[in-house]
Amino acid sequence: MYNVALLGAGRIGLVHAVNIVNHPETTLYSVADPYEPNAKKMAEKYGCKIQTIEEVMADPNVHAVLIASATDTHADLIELSARAGKTIFCEKPIHLDMARVQECLKVVEECNVPLFIGFNRRYDPQFRQVKERLQQGQIGKPESLIIISRDPSPPPAAYVKVSGGLFRDMAIHDFDMARFIMGEDPVSVYASGSCLVNPEIGEAGDIDTAFVVMRFPSGAMATISNTRRSGYGYDQRLELHGEKGVLTAKNIYEDSVELWTDEGCKYAKPEFFFLQRYDAAYKAEWEHFVDILNGKATPATTGFDGMQALHLADKALESLQTGKEVKL
Amino acid sequence: MYNVALLGAGRIGLVHAVNIVNHPETTLYSVADPYEPNAKKMAEKYGCKIQTIEEVMADPNVHAVLIASATDTHADLIELSARAGKTIFCEKPIHLDMARVQECLKVVEECNVPLFIGFNRRYDPQFRQVKERLQQGQIGKPESLIIISRDPSPPPAAYVKVSGGLFRDMAIHDFDMARFIMGEDPVSVYASGSCLVNPEIGEAGDIDTAFVVMRFPSGAMATISNTRRSGYGYDQRLELHGEKGVLTAKNIYEDSVELWTDEGCKYAKPEFFFLQRYDAAYKAEWEHFVDILNGKATPATTGFDGMQALHLADKALESLQTGKEVKL
Amino acid sequence: MYNVALLGAGRIGLVHAVNIVNHPETTLYSVADPYEPNAKKMAEKYGCKIQTIEEVMADPNVHAVLIASATDTHADLIELSARAGKTIFCEKPIHLDMARVQECLKVVEECNVPLFIGFNRRYDPQFRQVKERLQQGQIGKPESLIIISRDPSPPPAAYVKVSGGLFRDMAIHDFDMARFIMGEDPVSVYASGSCLVNPEIGEAGDIDTAFVVMRFPSGAMATISNTRRSGYGYDQRLELHGEKGVLTAKNIYEDSVELWTDEGCKYAKPEFFFLQRYDAAYKAEWEHFVDILNGKATPATTGFDGMQALHLADKALESLQTGKEVKL
Amino acid sequence: MYNVALLGAGRIGLVHAVNIVNHPETTLYSVADPYEPNAKKMAEKYGCKIQTIEEVMADPNVHAVLIASATDTHADLIELSARAGKTIFCEKPIHLDMARVQECLKVVEECNVPLFIGFNRRYDPQFRQVKERLQQGQIGKPESLIIISRDPSPPPAAYVKVSGGLFRDMAIHDFDMARFIMGEDPVSVYASGSCLVNPEIGEAGDIDTAFVVMRFPSGAMATISNTRRSGYGYDQRLELHGEKGVLTAKNIYEDSVELWTDEGCKYAKPEFFFLQRYDAAYKAEWEHFVDILNGKATPATTGFDGMQALHLADKALESLQTGKEVKL
Repeated sequence: MYNVALLGAGRIGLVHAVNIVNHPETTLYSVADPYEPNAKKMAEKYGCKIQTIEEVMADPNVHAVLIASATDTHADLIELSARAGKTIFCEKPIHLDMARVQECLKVVEECNVPLFIGFNRRYDPQFRQVKERLQQGQIGKPESLIIISRDPSPPPAAYVKVSGGLFRDMAIHDFDMARFIMGEDPVSVYASGSCLVNPEIGEAGDIDTAFVVMRFPSGAMATISNTRRSGYGYDQRLELHGEKGVLTAKNIYEDSVELWTDEGCKYAKPEFFFLQRYDAAYKAEWEHFVDILNGKATPATTGFDGMQALHLADKALESLQTGKEVKL
Repeated sequence: MYNVALLGAGRIGLVHAVNIVNHPETTLYSVADPYEPNAKKMAEKYGCKIQTIEEVMADPNVHAVLIASATDTHADLIELSARAGKTIFCEKPIHLDMARVQECLKVVEECNVPLFIGFNRRYDPQFRQVKERLQQGQIGKPESLIIISRDPSPPPAAYVKVSGGLFRDMAIHDFDMARFIMGEDPVSVYASGSCLVNPEIGEAGDIDTAFVVMRFPSGAMATISNTRRSGYGYDQRLELHGEKGVLTAKNIYEDSVELWTDEGCKYAKPEFFFLQRYDAAYKAEWEHFVDILNGKATPATTGFDGMQALHLADKALESLQTGKEVKL
Repeated sequence: MYNVALLGAGRIGLVHAVNIVNHPETTLYSVADPYEPNAKKMAEKYGCKIQTIEEVMADPNVHAVLIASATDTHADLIELSARAGKTIFCEKPIHLDMARVQECLKVVEECNVPLFIGFNRRYDPQFRQVKERLQQGQIGKPESLIIISRDPSPPPAAYVKVSGGLFRDMAIHDFDMARFIMGEDPVSVYASGSCLVNPEIGEAGDIDTAFVVMRFPSGAMATISNTRRSGYGYDQRLELHGEKGVLTAKNIYEDSVELWTDEGCKYAKPEFFFLQRYDAAYKAEWEHFVDILNGKATPATTGFDGMQALHLADKALESLQTGKEVKL
Repeated sequence: MYNVALLGAGRIGLVHAVNIVNHPETTLYSVADPYEPNAKKMAEKYGCKIQTIEEVMADPNVHAVLIASATDTHADLIELSARAGKTIFCEKPIHLDMARVQECLKVVEECNVPLFIGFNRRYDPQFRQVKERLQQGQIGKPESLIIISRDPSPPPAAYVKVSGGLFRDMAIHDFDMARFIMGEDPVSVYASGSCLVNPEIGEAGDIDTAFVVMRFPSGAMATISNTRRSGYGYDQRLELHGEKGVLTAKNIYEDSVELWTDEGCKYAKPEFFFLQRYDAAYKAEWEHFVDILNGKATPATTGFDGMQALHLADKALESLQTGKEVKL
């Protein structure tokens, strides 16, 4: 049985807490959160300790940490945990600044602890199927990948300001997905973007709508279509064209009921938010992390993956600003 | 917190155990099963007591029983539990013999305990949506109901012999569904059936393929299409035609991935078995039962519903044997 | 080049006229219609002669007749045409009275002319695919057939009175479809029906909603679900379950456009009426008739097929009236 | 009745000939083709004259010409026809060289004759629905357009050499579609491309796989995904995201039949080639041209549209070669 300390008891921390508790090999041992009410609520709900970060690091009973705190604390917490010899699960991103990421990963390397970066979508059963069937040869070599990734509604402008921008905050998942599906790193990236959803996002220096094109060493290409507001739910699809055909992962819908009337045929919207849509992914991700704890697996999404996705986000931004394809 | 004794630790008992354990207001207090290894396995997994039926009934700490034992023990266990003042959750059916059912329900009535019959499909979110949207008036008055209910593969002939036959064992769910959706009891039933899947089923005196037509007081009609072997998974659909259109609940598929090649477009099969297909239904059913324990609800599927579904099964059999529509 | 006389220049006559004119081997030679304005309009549009029935029969230039006149004239016109040695295309039904049908078919037999009965749906590419794939063994032996056949809106009560009733007028197509798909004649039929759409239909002695169950010598069964008013267009589907799986022909939709908004996902209705839905079927039917004229084929839907479908309709009515399954 | 001279009796000429013949207001008056067997076949089939280009131009009975000849003859034939005062229907493109296009359009302008450019896809009922529903406000302002346009199989390398390349030959339709849907001209274009399908295409200096991103004055963007070989048929879809949701035009499938077996659920491929897929579009296009002849309409796709689509193709090529977004 592995004792896990949860660093950060907000929305995403809650998602992980349920999975930690329900897994037969893990225990939610403690929670740490600078915002006391969150920590208390979690401790009451699951009967776990409240600890400070220092206590977590010093406690030999803590085998692993799950970092689900504010983005700008991730790198610091990773370093502390690595030095304390904990096995680390960290929500993406490591940090919004590339130099800081590299520094942090050096510490992890020196301490030689496993670091898993939570790119949840890689563990979504739908996208995983696409990857597996590609590997089975169902469509031959991959040639064109289209990723459609639309949030249901935009974040507040206040959040946008500290988010690192659409590419580092939102598209980072899609950059990782493109690397995951294609199995290689792109050699160029081009990005185009606009502020169409909310002018306050533009005033905050960000965009809310984007297209990205990446080119891979094999000559294959990928495009990403992003918007901060879909109008109909969480739109998470991809379509991979290869030499023999297409593999496409469609949305998951709220239900399977159709209504046919003289106004047409109507069915459900896609599941509205990431908590529902990626429920199975969060569970599978935790299964994988337990395998890491057990020594049965090494992290399938590593610090390097975290760094590469950020690198693509940085270069997409450079392309947006210069109007040029950026070589990588 | 309510203590639940689980009577029967087989396949369906396991499904319920998970939900009892995961619900914040219920505890799996004990398990009783004449087959000791099952009881032991359950007790070890969830850290609950092993009790005899007598101990369950005598134990004042047991607030509720969940009867998931062999079919022919249901009526006896209901009576014992009713006399012991327990709140009762019983898997369908109450008994295969109508006289025994009536006797049993009289005891329940005398003891004045809540009895919930586990017609799981009524709690499936898909079918429930159809019912709710009908009530909202989306298709006006209901006129024609088509229920398609196909098991993935036939049971062994040995089971068929003690099952009560296709109508009492399998179609009973569909009879209940028809009553649930239409909101009234049929006035006639006609059935036609064949043994097409496995001759041993015919030798055991049963059929494996059937069509049923029911007529309701409003003039609306319903048909059920059953087979013991679909060839492609658990096929659980319904389509309700009303004066303004159709509401249809489609299957739930194994995944959302499509493959397009020169051989055509291919997508997943329906979820293969009832454990997956009705996972959400079993959870919702338990939520409802906890509401009964809390006094917030009375059983939505009662002993009367159990009796009526059996009555329809009996009369369908009579129709099959006489070649006549049976008036009810 | 074959000269065709069109007997009846109403709605269905117009459908056929276009196909006659467009086919490279047939000419619309003449039109006969007791309602003069119809005949004139047709003659002007296509530059064909207007003839009386007597002139048609006496004219050696007329190679074939297409009977698209009022139902009660079909048998008389078939007999006249047979005696005049014309090759005959007759819209279903031959007659609403079985004795008259048998008499008429005797004349056809004596005159030894080809008689094709226009069961258009057999030539629909969708249903034909189902039949062909069944024959290719894609689902093994057929076991359960479900035919859903719903008209968009009910006919006027005045028409209902002379129509022969729902079974002879509307379901007759579905009886024929069941025979076509299963490749055998049923051994029993059961029918249930109601008047739910329009009370005037009930006052005219007819029903507007029906379920039919048929049993075939192989033990396979079929059900038909009919209504005179769908609420959403012409609903023409079938689903054939066999030992290895299902073949299902879905509706044809008005377009391929979907709209996704916060109210859900919406797509088109089925094509609204039979003229659109069966456009391809009418063309294919005419191709087949030209093959008959050419001696390349014998009628795939014969007088016998017309008689059998009527027989099933008659027996369904008997079942409806007696509440018994009728043996055939 | 308008007399039409068909200049070019190849594959696409045949498509138009059928529509000219079937339209009640147009006659296929004559055909001109330098390859005599083609002209003869057409003349025999439809009973029209064979003329030389000079005869066509001099013949006062010719009201309109339909130019369906080799691409490099289009501009010359447009000029001749314009000078002869004919109303002109010309297949895309006007010419592969922009200077020549401009010269040609100047002549058309001087002669003041209607010139219609055959961008068939604008007349496809599916894409037209998307445009119309956008205009009705169903999704608010357009923001992101994704056009997926894949040919079933690549052309021979010999054709590729004279085709003008993927952008001018194939993507030109998609450039026009983007302009049509968005209702404005892009302000920048970026293109990325690879040769993945057939190395001979690369040796001929062309690509066979491409992604294009365009930006519009409103800030809206569009992407095009092209390949010369889909592996499963003619893949012609688009998806328009706007402020309130998505409008998406899906493929048209070969049939509506599904097969469900233990290997999964299978349905038909998209219609295999443009002749089937755009059959309705060609008919609608001709209807529109007849309206031009009648003076009821002016060309909805003009010489200017032909020039703009070519301009986008030229600039996409420039972007591909320079790795920069090209401002327009």
